[in-house]
Amino acid sequence: MAIEDITGRIARDLEHLKQHTATPGEGCTRLPFTKEARDAVEFLKQLMAEAGLEVSEDAAGNVIGILKGEDPEAPCVMMGSHYDSVVNGGDYDGIAGVISAIEVARQLQESGVPRKCNFVAVGFCDEEGMRFGTGYFGSGAMLGNRDVEYCKNFKDTDGISIYDAMKGYGLDPERIGEAKWPAGSIGHFLEAHIEQGPVLDAENIEIGLVDCIVGIQRYMVTVHGRADHAGTTPMDMRLDAVDAATKVISKIPDWAREKADGTVATTGYINTVPGGMNIVAEKVEFTVDIRSKNNDNINDIARRIRAALDREVSAMGGSYEIDTKLVITPVNLSQEMLSVMEESCKAHDYSYKYLPSGAGHDSLEIGQVLPTVMIFVPSKEGRSHCPVEFTKYSDLAKASVVMAELAQKLLG
Amino acid sequence: MAIEDITGRIARDLEHLKQHTATPGEGCTRLPFTKEARDAVEFLKQLMAEAGLEVSEDAAGNVIGILKGEDPEAPCVMMGSHYDSVVNGGDYDGIAGVISAIEVARQLQESGVPRKCNFVAVGFCDEEGMRFGTGYFGSGAMLGNRDVEYCKNFKDTDGISIYDAMKGYGLDPERIGEAKWPAGSIGHFLEAHIEQGPVLDAENIEIGLVDCIVGIQRYMVTVHGRADHAGTTPMDMRLDAVDAATKVISKIPDWAREKADGTVATTGYINTVPGGMNIVAEKVEFTVDIRSKNNDNINDIARRIRAALDREVSAMGGSYEIDTKLVITPVNLSQEMLSVMEESCKAHDYSYKYLPSGAGHDSLEIGQVLPTVMIFVPSKEGRSHCPVEFTKYSDLAKASVVMAELAQKLLG
Repeated sequence: MAIEDITGRIARDLEHLKQHTATPGEGCTRLPFTKEARDAVEFLKQLMAEAGLEVSEDAAGNVIGILKGEDPEAPCVMMGSHYDSVVNGGDYDGIAGVISAIEVARQLQESGVPRKCNFVAVGFCDEEGMRFGTGYFGSGAMLGNRDVEYCKNFKDTDGISIYDAMKGYGLDPERIGEAKWPAGSIGHFLEAHIEQGPVLDAENIEIGLVDCIVGIQRYMVTVHGRADHAGTTPMDMRLDAVDAATKVISKIPDWAREKADGTVATTGYINTVPGGMNIVAEKVEFTVDIRSKNNDNINDIARRIRAALDREVSAMGGSYEIDTKLVITPVNLSQEMLSVMEESCKAHDYSYKYLPSGAGHDSLEIGQVLPTVMIFVPSKEGRSHCPVEFTKYSDLAKASVVMAELAQKLLG
Repeated sequence: MAIEDITGRIARDLEHLKQHTATPGEGCTRLPFTKEARDAVEFLKQLMAEAGLEVSEDAAGNVIGILKGEDPEAPCVMMGSHYDSVVNGGDYDGIAGVISAIEVARQLQESGVPRKCNFVAVGFCDEEGMRFGTGYFGSGAMLGNRDVEYCKNFKDTDGISIYDAMKGYGLDPERIGEAKWPAGSIGHFLEAHIEQGPVLDAENIEIGLVDCIVGIQRYMVTVHGRADHAGTTPMDMRLDAVDAATKVISKIPDWAREKADGTVATTGYINTVPGGMNIVAEKVEFTVDIRSKNNDNINDIARRIRAALDREVSAMGGSYEIDTKLVITPVNLSQEMLSVMEESCKAHDYSYKYLPSGAGHDSLEIGQVLPTVMIFVPSKEGRSHCPVEFTKYSDLAKASVVMAELAQKLLG
């Protein structure tokens, strides 16, 4: 199959899927357990069936297509991504990886090469966690990490729980445990995904070989000072929470830059209380999000933040507290599988680059327990989670060729 | 008159005035042109009449009591402060200075010493500007700086203009011009006021001799960067508005401290847009309030802020704008009058200290054009504009003694 024809098939499928959004003309809004999700899943089932796969939908809402091998009991090679989106998101995030998996199944069949193991294409349900404030629902359920209690606990802004949403969608949440695959039944997991960052596009590279999904630590820091009149309170008699907090915040990006290995650190939110022009702030709240493939770097920056807070808040005379919101350790992806894909890139003369994933993915959930690998395709100007999100179909086609060659090798 | 008796009179009057609040039990709320303002003014008129003053209310709502001298045409000595308050304010801010002026009139009469000029005690209307977002209304009108247009322009949050509020209160706003005193008719202006800052209380000093009302410059700064994913965007590819803004904000207090002459600088408000934990901020807005008795210091800090913004915003790759909200130059108060009061403090063995006023007052409006002086009395722990605001009646009594001696000297 010529690369142009593969590009055409991927383009046809993704263009069709663009219509399954709750916000036509304003990007893709395909929340889990909605009509848009159902419509997308039915179309994916149809594509899978046309590709000769054995189609099913599991208890978690994942859509599954199996290309049978000679020994269906042998550990399978699974490939997929998610079919849900954020609100007013793009047409590629997640769904491009599901279509890539179906495309790989097509190429495996067209090759005529015999396969020992099953190849499984999956469209996962609710990776984004947008509706219920969660995430990795379908991939987590497949690993046995979601139960009935979990489904009842999380609710959307209308007060509808995952449990009730599943029932309205035609699933039985009491059977969520059945979505788990037996230990040893999945041999390898592969995921193609848009980069959602600017690196590949800026460097004009076609394929990103993802060697790691970065670890994340997130904190909410609160610095307590004292409210005073900004005119009548001398500098040495005030407890200025902004003074202490900004002396810490302003250093955080520099500490990330110092690491010079892709480590990033971000303060995206600062709130001053009471927030008057002429009132010394009695309280400053700010967030810190630190990510790195090297967990020691994350810990070092978190340690420096605490040390700087100790120093500046003590100089100011106030106090502070840190609320830990998230701690995820980095996941290293399979170097063996990456090496196979690197050889494919060289053979096809595709430009490639090793890079870490700065965002979480289904592969973050799955990579904790199974040999996992990801390919990134370029995102135009790094834009994602917005309607202007764009990825070239030809780049997705090249990624599918590389992943099909890896899958063929793994299928034995 | 023994100081204990003076203390008693001031206590009696201020305790009575505490009831004229719209928020009983929750501090003083006495907005201009309200029932509470009317009740307070009627009580002040009664006190003035009892003290033998010729009482009137002018077209701006100022309450005026004149203690006649031998030559009523000679420039008078005027003393006063304001009778309005902020919302949920204290029982001393402003009104303590009005009662002090009436108390000085009492002492002048009791002294039996003949006076050539008139002594005029004044309660000014709407210094705080709380209701209409303005300020110095009564003192400004007395100087001829408020007209009908002004009264129509400013409205409260219910859409009621100063003009309409005055009519509802029994004043004719068309006659606002009549509140102006003829040029040369006021020879000197004296004001007693609570410090509203912590300096006198912390140093256990009874009398603050205010040598200057500080200048103020206020700015709203907006730094523009670019929103990016906090995980997928490398440090060297992001335009982080928080990074640039906090590198500037964190230095501002240090520049004020360097001056070591009472100069203060405050960022009380910071807003991050969009404000997500995992999104690089595309915009940061922050305020700067700089005050000093030395205008060069204010200009120097404002210049350093612009230079730092140039540097940091250019390093970041974004842009910024500065919106100037307020520029007031410092007002030096009368050194001759301060020297007279200093001698009084020494003679009575009252502890005293020269200090600037960090907040604006009616004296800021009046001091621009007339020889003006202020006394500060200590505010407990510097608290003001809140229900716990507290000043000792005995400190107010001592201030009245010092100001009465100055007035006696000026009255000739």
